[in-house]
Amino acid sequence: MSGPVILPRVIRTRAELSAALETAPRPVGLVPTMGALHEGHASLIRRARADNRTAIVTIFVNPRQFNEVADFDKYPRDEEMDLRTCGSAGADLVFVPGVDEIYPPGFQTSVRVGTLAEPLEGVARPGHFDGVTTVVAILLGLVRADRAYFGQKDAQQLLILRRMAADLGIGTEIAACPIVRAPDGLALSSRNARLGPEQRAAAPILRVALTAARARYGAGERNGEVLRRVMRDTLATEPLASPEYVSCADTATLLELDHVSGAALLSMAVRFGDVRLIDNDLLP
Amino acid sequence: MSGPVILPRVIRTRAELSAALETAPRPVGLVPTMGALHEGHASLIRRARADNRTAIVTIFVNPRQFNEVADFDKYPRDEEMDLRTCGSAGADLVFVPGVDEIYPPGFQTSVRVGTLAEPLEGVARPGHFDGVTTVVAILLGLVRADRAYFGQKDAQQLLILRRMAADLGIGTEIAACPIVRAPDGLALSSRNARLGPEQRAAAPILRVALTAARARYGAGERNGEVLRRVMRDTLATEPLASPEYVSCADTATLLELDHVSGAALLSMAVRFGDVRLIDNDLLP
Repeated sequence: MSGPVILPRVIRTRAELSAALETAPRPVGLVPTMGALHEGHASLIRRARADNRTAIVTIFVNPRQFNEVADFDKYPRDEEMDLRTCGSAGADLVFVPGVDEIYPPGFQTSVRVGTLAEPLEGVARPGHFDGVTTVVAILLGLVRADRAYFGQKDAQQLLILRRMAADLGIGTEIAACPIVRAPDGLALSSRNARLGPEQRAAAPILRVALTAARARYGAGERNGEVLRRVMRDTLATEPLASPEYVSCADTATLLELDHVSGAALLSMAVRFGDVRLIDNDLLP
Repeated sequence: MSGPVILPRVIRTRAELSAALETAPRPVGLVPTMGALHEGHASLIRRARADNRTAIVTIFVNPRQFNEVADFDKYPRDEEMDLRTCGSAGADLVFVPGVDEIYPPGFQTSVRVGTLAEPLEGVARPGHFDGVTTVVAILLGLVRADRAYFGQKDAQQLLILRRMAADLGIGTEIAACPIVRAPDGLALSSRNARLGPEQRAAAPILRVALTAARARYGAGERNGEVLRRVMRDTLATEPLASPEYVSCADTATLLELDHVSGAALLSMAVRFGDVRLIDNDLLP
């Protein structure tokens, strides 16, 4: 039996946020989310809680990072449940702005990262990363956190946000947290709830494919195409899985590697019906 | 006879700047410049000095806001003279970064303001404002000043930077300072030095045209096209002046006004040979 959850303080406007930050003990840790919080998000909040004197979560379903209005409309929203998750994980403040608070009337500014945003997710989701970099720049500007926490699951997003913060002289450290997985290896995602039972049973194949490639790497394989083929061949054993891309890329440029000499990002996007899942692993 | 000028402290890297800011008394006022400092810049520095406990000037000839490499190459640079101007006007710190300090290796982020950047100067100088917003976002990120000072002479730039700061939640107040003019009315500009003697004698016609339009406005005229025509007709009396645009625009949108009901920006760009001058006046 668990005790009562202390709900965090909810703020909804830029002005309230600014006032709250004036008295918030430093350092401040920020966890930007789109809600639909799961254990992966909770791990980010606990880390922000542990590293800082103030932990702030933002919940904002950002219309600018959806490629299709229908996806935005059907994105799951359950504020009460999310606030309980924030409270349990130790958030002090939760910023839940309306769209007009993030994008005030006449808004017309965008922040864009170049070549890092082009391959992989950038191919499948045109404009997506411009939406992400713009909203994160706004949140980092408003909160001026000492640290901001993002999940390693969105590996390309993490690289892009680090690039943006370095390029624009943003004084917030971009911290990465490990992927949180279900017991069978499936990376947690709000999209997992949309998988049918058979799809859900098949979905851990992403992790199996990554593990197979890592094993080949551990056995000495350094040919990027061989590592990609190992992943493709593993995915091909699962009839419900439709791979969109399979990548073994340079972690600095996200360009595909012929030969793995330093760090490499193994990553993939795979469809199960209309549900698109991603996963990744960093070598070594 | 003037006393010796105390030269301000010069810093050249992000790291030195960051260290210097840790002990700089707040509030901090920032004056971003491209050097070639004249009395207009000095007025910005004196204002930053008067309003804040620390006054920082940046001198950075930004390659990204030039439309042509030749313009960038021939832009006047005289660091010693500029530092004396900064010192005389009361700057505590002058940040003179190399290009790689502002745009580190792999730099690929841009900040863009939309429709406000399209008309007037945006037509004549494609990409110019993207360069300005990107570099100013970087400087505001690095300095985290309480206030940043810009001249009203670049009226469109000022509107764009205010829009950017509001949109991105940048906590620096964007302060405008009045145009500083030569005794004959010509707005100060580093470009004035490139005018030949006859061109220099003719250049105050911009101010004359603005004054004529303001007088018509003062007499009750509210038709935007009539006010533009007054400016065009005045400029036409000067054979050395080749107008590029003449505008009477809404101060929020920079769209041309048919009828002036609230605030309006009178502005113009005029060529004298290969020297392009701008000037403006705010109604009322």
